[in-house]
Amino acid sequence: MLLTVEKMLFLKSVPLFASLEGNDLVSLSEICAEQEMPAGSAVFHENEEGNQLYVIVEGKVKVFRGEDAAERQLAELGERECFGEMALLDSELRSASVATLEPCRFLVINGDDFRDLILNHPKISLAILRLLSQRLRKADEMSAPAAVYTAAQGYM
Amino acid sequence: MLLTVEKMLFLKSVPLFASLEGNDLVSLSEICAEQEMPAGSAVFHENEEGNQLYVIVEGKVKVFRGEDAAERQLAELGERECFGEMALLDSELRSASVATLEPCRFLVINGDDFRDLILNHPKISLAILRLLSQRLRKADEMSAPAAVYTAAQGYM
Repeated sequence: MLLTVEKMLFLKSVPLFASLEGNDLVSLSEICAEQEMPAGSAVFHENEEGNQLYVIVEGKVKVFRGEDAAERQLAELGERECFGEMALLDSELRSASVATLEPCRFLVINGDDFRDLILNHPKISLAILRLLSQRLRKADEMSAPAAVYTAAQGYM
Repeated sequence: MLLTVEKMLFLKSVPLFASLEGNDLVSLSEICAEQEMPAGSAVFHENEEGNQLYVIVEGKVKVFRGEDAAERQLAELGERECFGEMALLDSELRSASVATLEPCRFLVINGDDFRDLILNHPKISLAILRLLSQRLRKADEMSAPAAVYTAAQGYM
């Protein structure tokens, strides 16, 4: 188990939360639960409902679509990386599956707690808006113009 | 000039702000300035600093990269569509240029006012987080797996 101060220091080192300070960081660490999983566990499946954001404290996961022979790996994620935030924010289904490649420890944030946190600590939302915007910018840069047009209802 | 109530009704009809109600909508309408531009005007240029979000009340704009013969049009946007929000949220440079195709009327929201609005009306940020997340989901769906990996520091 992480102590509260260790949890805060760790969260501060995660890019998604790096701009948070003081009370915002304390409140965030209070809503993080810890979870351990052995290697080869399914964290969640594509097209499931999902209401948790995961931060990897230790270990590696793979992100993939499809199953068995049709599996297509999209990414490997490791320490200090996050996954699950999109379904949490837009309440839609998981866009891919995630499984552990090594024994993993996560901090898990529940969607309702996260929304309450944002309502009470609106600075957190500015940090997340900044990060999502940067990710969208990079995604747009890599898309063909047709895809850019369809992807965005707004621009720049 | 739009009356405050007309401005509120219009903002409510814009997808980015559709989930806002009551006080949040009043406060948003208070920070919107109106701006008119003739056809063929540059609204802003690629790689400029930019701190304004534009909502199109009337008219059409084109979104493009490059200049003159090397110009590559990315999109046309019309009534109730927004542009400029990414540079406003992440404080980076404009990712494309925008010019008017017809005489246009805009509502213009200044970045500092917008950040203050979010700090005072955190529900607004939940609405925008939801929208950005949906756009990112669509952008990811259209990207090749390699692009998905590079674009995201987190997933799903």
